[in-house]
Amino acid sequence: MTEDKFLVPRDVYLKSGIHIGTKFRTAYMEQFIYKTRPDGLSVLNLQKIDERIKIAAAFLTQYEPKDVLIICRRENGWKAVELFGKLTGVRTFAGRYPPGILTNPNLEDYTEAKLVMVVDAWPDRNAVMDAVKVGMPVIALCDTNNQTNFIDFVVPCNNKGKKSLGLFFYLLAVEYMKIKGRITSADQLGATMEDFTEK
Amino acid sequence: MTEDKFLVPRDVYLKSGIHIGTKFRTAYMEQFIYKTRPDGLSVLNLQKIDERIKIAAAFLTQYEPKDVLIICRRENGWKAVELFGKLTGVRTFAGRYPPGILTNPNLEDYTEAKLVMVVDAWPDRNAVMDAVKVGMPVIALCDTNNQTNFIDFVVPCNNKGKKSLGLFFYLLAVEYMKIKGRITSADQLGATMEDFTEK
Repeated sequence: MTEDKFLVPRDVYLKSGIHIGTKFRTAYMEQFIYKTRPDGLSVLNLQKIDERIKIAAAFLTQYEPKDVLIICRRENGWKAVELFGKLTGVRTFAGRYPPGILTNPNLEDYTEAKLVMVVDAWPDRNAVMDAVKVGMPVIALCDTNNQTNFIDFVVPCNNKGKKSLGLFFYLLAVEYMKIKGRITSADQLGATMEDFTEK
Repeated sequence: MTEDKFLVPRDVYLKSGIHIGTKFRTAYMEQFIYKTRPDGLSVLNLQKIDERIKIAAAFLTQYEPKDVLIICRRENGWKAVELFGKLTGVRTFAGRYPPGILTNPNLEDYTEAKLVMVVDAWPDRNAVMDAVKVGMPVIALCDTNNQTNFIDFVVPCNNKGKKSLGLFFYLLAVEYMKIKGRITSADQLGATMEDFTEK
């Protein structure tokens, strides 16, 4: 996976800020950090981001769309997550995660899933712990400041910005649909990168 | 992923002992444990084993075979690991892992890889830490007693017995070759389940 095999040109990644971390770093996330900028912000390794988007897509395709639930409490991710769901058929939950919907069959909005993806392991921590309780694998987008306990697969990236999250879900959608054999190139997706990243 | 979609019939799994854990359990592995037997041994959840073998195969196929290295210090896994390598083209290392071969370019037996899989996160811990240092994802077979720090993807199973490891690598080989499009059914693999599990 050398640079010329990136999912999008390097400058598209850089413009989205997908590689910009925080000033805080956890031990597990160290391996994904390329350097620290003079202003103290960590910079994530672009090659590892690119590589793990591909793996996350392959991971997701092992399940039926209806068995996958993507959860995003952070408002900057709502539009991208919902568009991803619309295109792929994967279920999404944008907003506050109601406690117990994955674990308590007596609740009215109880729902079954087999794989959970969260946009940020911290604000979405209730969903992570519920998924672990019922034994579902958890994929999480993690920034340099995230703890990764109980996450089954980490995708390092800036999980806070609207452009970064937009680009992430756009690339995930293209890869997902390609692996599923539903499209052969990005222009067949039915939505553009801008649809994911713009307001 | 209901039971009727298991990779092999339930009794084939059970005969191999792939679900038999140890008397010791770590916090992360709790989620994969189905029950504790009267003799104190933990029993792993078969559905989760089956599910994660499929995901591990999909994960591996995201890389060229030459970029994947499977490491196995435990002798009970050597035959199965080597047969897996012969059939798939994935590189294998059965035996003592020479420190630094993944991290020190000055060593004569230095080798590059992009993904590492280990048969047991504990005896193979030097390989795990080297892989983390250079930023490679690590897949690990983990029994109920394994710590999972720094493992990117855990496949719960009995990683000690010859039959269990044989069955694991047989199923992984079949799934891997199917996803890669090199075979369409198990009988085209070029080796039988017995080739993996027998002495």
